[in-house]
Amino acid sequence: MTEPMFERVALIGIGLIGSSISHAARRKGLAKELVGSARTKATVDTALDLGLISKGYDNAAEAVAGADLVILSVPVGACGPITAEIAPHLKPGAIVTDVGSVKAQVVRDMAPYIPKGVHFVPGHPIAGTEQSGPEAGFAELFDGRWTILTPEAHTDGAAVEKLRAFWEALGAKVEVMDPQHHDMVLAITSHLPHLIAFNIVNTAEHLERVTDKEVIKFSAGGFRDFTRIAASDPTMWRDIFLGNKEGVMEMLRRFSRDLEELKAAIESGDGDVLYRRFAEARAIRRGIVAAGQDTAAPDFGRGPSQVAAKREADPKARK
Amino acid sequence: MTEPMFERVALIGIGLIGSSISHAARRKGLAKELVGSARTKATVDTALDLGLISKGYDNAAEAVAGADLVILSVPVGACGPITAEIAPHLKPGAIVTDVGSVKAQVVRDMAPYIPKGVHFVPGHPIAGTEQSGPEAGFAELFDGRWTILTPEAHTDGAAVEKLRAFWEALGAKVEVMDPQHHDMVLAITSHLPHLIAFNIVNTAEHLERVTDKEVIKFSAGGFRDFTRIAASDPTMWRDIFLGNKEGVMEMLRRFSRDLEELKAAIESGDGDVLYRRFAEARAIRRGIVAAGQDTAAPDFGRGPSQVAAKREADPKARK
Repeated sequence: MTEPMFERVALIGIGLIGSSISHAARRKGLAKELVGSARTKATVDTALDLGLISKGYDNAAEAVAGADLVILSVPVGACGPITAEIAPHLKPGAIVTDVGSVKAQVVRDMAPYIPKGVHFVPGHPIAGTEQSGPEAGFAELFDGRWTILTPEAHTDGAAVEKLRAFWEALGAKVEVMDPQHHDMVLAITSHLPHLIAFNIVNTAEHLERVTDKEVIKFSAGGFRDFTRIAASDPTMWRDIFLGNKEGVMEMLRRFSRDLEELKAAIESGDGDVLYRRFAEARAIRRGIVAAGQDTAAPDFGRGPSQVAAKREADPKARK
Repeated sequence: MTEPMFERVALIGIGLIGSSISHAARRKGLAKELVGSARTKATVDTALDLGLISKGYDNAAEAVAGADLVILSVPVGACGPITAEIAPHLKPGAIVTDVGSVKAQVVRDMAPYIPKGVHFVPGHPIAGTEQSGPEAGFAELFDGRWTILTPEAHTDGAAVEKLRAFWEALGAKVEVMDPQHHDMVLAITSHLPHLIAFNIVNTAEHLERVTDKEVIKFSAGGFRDFTRIAASDPTMWRDIFLGNKEGVMEMLRRFSRDLEELKAAIESGDGDVLYRRFAEARAIRRGIVAAGQDTAAPDFGRGPSQVAAKREADPKARK
């Protein structure tokens, strides 16, 4: 247990991310006091029951009073309105941040409301699961993952460094980037994959020649991997696509163009093009595993028996 | 250990599937003798070293001599030529099967060569990992997964039942289907997901505004899920797309049409359409988990600490 970094941290929104911040902050004693508010009373009550916060509030304005760190963990479309609401109540010298998956729009929506003397440092932890709500969080969510901060050029350097140290203490690695570049990076690493996953699940649900029951039964052939991310919170994702229109549209154009090439190769029976494209795709997987951003276990290590089986098989290989 | 179901089983092709069949068959003592051949001598040697087969052969024709079950586990494009090669050497009364992910074309390619008195029962286990080769197999691969058999109407019923019992003893559940329907089901549950995954990885690799290094670093936002299946064997997948052109094309048309709808909603800022589509996608995930075809662990249970963290969090919830 080190000296707390903040006296009072206010969590505005206590879903998967907000609750994981609480778990990770308490693991290290980073805040003397953790308080919060949520859209519904039920969430605030659950957060109190789980010990995620020691004081719960009906509204964000009350929750931020006296806080030296305010973290908005809400759908990105709600960031502007909430900032307008809390602005008059922010403590001078406080740091205000968010965790939204879109940054340029969030900066546009929040920055105009931030009072002089309050430090606005937008942030985005690249971590999550398909689950939502205050019970979904856990302390290890950010361990070894990246958090991107997108401060403006005029932002107080000490505030940026303090938030960086906070995220590192939560377990994350930190990178600073401009908001526009963040949105382009996330468009390909997160937003387009989610859009594609939502879309293929929708396609599968509306077939006449294949039933939903068959799709579910035989999903182990690859489809089930897509359904994991398609199970993510719909409100959050609606806001992301509306908020990063430019980035998503650019990646969609490229994706569709590349898909046309594969489609043409299938139609004309051009196996060489297919082979070349598929072989190229393997390399990036190895990079992700080498960078510690995914497990090397086959099939994501689904089924504990698989790992045991691999272990059993190995000694025979060496006999 | 039960009575062996077969005297001599010949594995033609000993990659992920062939080696897993060997592990699972030996686990239950289903074959008195397991022999095999592979495209390269190195694979045969590895299979012998691993104890996957007790006798290895240079060519498929020699390997099938005297076998009462012959299993082709090779890229679907190779099934026809190999059947032509082995046909004169097949034992009367033997069962010949395959494990290919495409069935109508495999039936067209193999059936003409099958001698009278030999029973051809095409099969397809819906199981796999992104890894390839004789060292990738393990006994539990088929446990709880489905295997589809696609015999023709005139096929000997006893042979179909014997192969069904064999797959059940390997751990699988078995369903019988016609080849055309199989190909349509697999087009949506496996082939289209793989095509989309290969494609998005290719798209990500050829961007100017985002580097490969950034894609890898920030892949935990969703992209990495796609790279797992995009790491699958390129030869196998080339053959599948060439072999199931009709099914893949139909699913691609529907996928592209649905994607146009999402694209239009993003462009026009129609949040209601996005929300509705995303909310619908959640239900099918629940169905897959309920059917035991995927783990309910968040994020596929990546990182063992997550499960522990969930467990730790629970008691507090009940305090």
